[in-house]
Amino acid sequence: LLSDFGLVDPFVGLMKSAVLARCPTATLVDLTHDLEPQDVRGAAFWLERCSRWFAPGTVHLAVVDPGVGTSRLGVVLEADQQLYVGPHNGLFDRVIGRARVRRLHLIDVQALGIAQPSATFHGRDVFGPVAGLLASGRLSAQEVGAEMQATPALEGVDPRRQGAGEVVVVDRFGNLITDIECSTEPEQRPSQVRVGGLSLVLNRCYADVAPGELLALVNSFGTIEIAVREGSAAQKLGFGRGVPVTAR
Amino acid sequence: LLSDFGLVDPFVGLMKSAVLARCPTATLVDLTHDLEPQDVRGAAFWLERCSRWFAPGTVHLAVVDPGVGTSRLGVVLEADQQLYVGPHNGLFDRVIGRARVRRLHLIDVQALGIAQPSATFHGRDVFGPVAGLLASGRLSAQEVGAEMQATPALEGVDPRRQGAGEVVVVDRFGNLITDIECSTEPEQRPSQVRVGGLSLVLNRCYADVAPGELLALVNSFGTIEIAVREGSAAQKLGFGRGVPVTAR
Amino acid sequence: LLSDFGLVDPFVGLMKSAVLARCPTATLVDLTHDLEPQDVRGAAFWLERCSRWFAPGTVHLAVVDPGVGTSRLGVVLEADQQLYVGPHNGLFDRVIGRARVRRLHLIDVQALGIAQPSATFHGRDVFGPVAGLLASGRLSAQEVGAEMQATPALEGVDPRRQGAGEVVVVDRFGNLITDIECSTEPEQRPSQVRVGGLSLVLNRCYADVAPGELLALVNSFGTIEIAVREGSAAQKLGFGRGVPVTAR
Repeated sequence: LLSDFGLVDPFVGLMKSAVLARCPTATLVDLTHDLEPQDVRGAAFWLERCSRWFAPGTVHLAVVDPGVGTSRLGVVLEADQQLYVGPHNGLFDRVIGRARVRRLHLIDVQALGIAQPSATFHGRDVFGPVAGLLASGRLSAQEVGAEMQATPALEGVDPRRQGAGEVVVVDRFGNLITDIECSTEPEQRPSQVRVGGLSLVLNRCYADVAPGELLALVNSFGTIEIAVREGSAAQKLGFGRGVPVTAR
Repeated sequence: LLSDFGLVDPFVGLMKSAVLARCPTATLVDLTHDLEPQDVRGAAFWLERCSRWFAPGTVHLAVVDPGVGTSRLGVVLEADQQLYVGPHNGLFDRVIGRARVRRLHLIDVQALGIAQPSATFHGRDVFGPVAGLLASGRLSAQEVGAEMQATPALEGVDPRRQGAGEVVVVDRFGNLITDIECSTEPEQRPSQVRVGGLSLVLNRCYADVAPGELLALVNSFGTIEIAVREGSAAQKLGFGRGVPVTAR
Repeated sequence: LLSDFGLVDPFVGLMKSAVLARCPTATLVDLTHDLEPQDVRGAAFWLERCSRWFAPGTVHLAVVDPGVGTSRLGVVLEADQQLYVGPHNGLFDRVIGRARVRRLHLIDVQALGIAQPSATFHGRDVFGPVAGLLASGRLSAQEVGAEMQATPALEGVDPRRQGAGEVVVVDRFGNLITDIECSTEPEQRPSQVRVGGLSLVLNRCYADVAPGELLALVNSFGTIEIAVREGSAAQKLGFGRGVPVTAR
């Protein structure tokens, strides 16, 4: 489960209730619900980076949905043996761009017998119920609705950027996480990272520098990250999401 | 589960442990634990609004308990085939006011053999254990303790207000959620909403107005809400909980 | 589960996925993930105080790990019929100091066949997998790796302080929680608590004083706490972690 619902209100709990009503034995894992409101780009990044750590057959329920109530499409994506349920607004673009095998199905609310959904909370009224039915095995992705072309909803997102990219997430530690992917081979890694006029040497872990010092490293998600040991790079540099970064 | 314990400290985890010790197969769903400290009114609103999305037989464990350690009563409420466990301090008043069938039972700590509870954490020491016993089926509501009159603990809360009410919750998006209930029939809905000298037309969903603009709508909980598309109404208007709102 | 990962990023979800991949039937309970970043001392306090509320056989997965990627040790601690998995950096010192029976085992990543872990996220790559294997029963603590001496990693932490101690945690309500342990016998309790020039009488519960007033009490974890009824002691006094407190 991933959303921008936050944990201050009961939205996540109600979405879970909708899943559990259709699949009482489901094991629910929260990826995060505290994305910045409407941060489709950050959500798309985490979905693509995290899905590899989940088992084949996992159903990802992802709702960052500023267009709820409009004609934006609700979909189920099959990609490399996992399913993704949510709005087709860019959320799944990185998964689509990366997947070897992918099929996209439009959710046909009426054919599925979903009672009149509200205009503002499809996590509870549409996507949660569909995810529950899929998880229970009582519904397959093909039965959800018509297949459509599995292309990104937005333009310009390339999940395989290597030399240049941007800060896509500022994490709770103030680390600046970029979408610049890195080889797992040490000798093929860039040695220098540039951000806002600064040039940083690529290190291995936070403890490679003294507390309070800036560093760049390849994080545990395989992308370049700019950090301050035991501190906040976001605060020290004053940089946030969208700042361009290059590596070479 | 619903409380004002927050997620920064281990209070919720300990309450869950108390439930699971009595009912290891329980499926636990968090509604929210980040209510404003001591916000009994907001808790009461969410409990009444959310319970319809949970299955018959659900046990609601709700702890917002500024009077813990005093003589305030601990109770189990049966209301329309669901159970509610927590302090009788107003938390259940909206559920009581709404329920077709309701019975209220005082928790008799000594008869239940609950070891000396602490003076400050009845979520872990009383309400969690009782909820676990109820969920396991080893204890029925009638066995909890003496039945008392199922009347609200506080005065003046009417869960069926229609023309006038107030902001009861400011959600994480800054939406101002009121307790003014709305008909599901479009033709019986009010057309105008008034708050602090402003008059707003009732819309259907956030995307009905331009980003940054104010709107009123009937939210997915069936009450009137004042919002800013992709922004915060609370911030834009400077209004919070308790502000009066009218609709006609 | 206890960490300083926060809930804003998907770190906790990925750690859970690593546990569930090895033990799909595990029941996961979050103690907290919102400790201050790198707050090993607060984590150590909560672990020791909370473990008594969990059943024998519980596996505690605790990751506050500023030294990740360095040569700091990863361990499994057996203490009084519960297991603790995480870095040996002080996190388990209070449990070690308190336990009647304790054995400490070094995690031998290579012998366990754990694929090349990342340099920055051992919660997902080492500790989560080990906790899952232990919870599933497919691995015992003895099989994790060589036994080492079960001594604290840091100096100077005594989990049994009685007359003097310090504020170790500021909870979400602004209560100042100290590590000064108190007898459960009322007549053996101190009557006066001193903090920063103030002298407070020991009360029983928050409601013993008027709203807004300062008090000291023995909290539900058996230590002395300084609080403001329906308010924040941290804000009222301007005190935080590390402030010395005495009781007599």
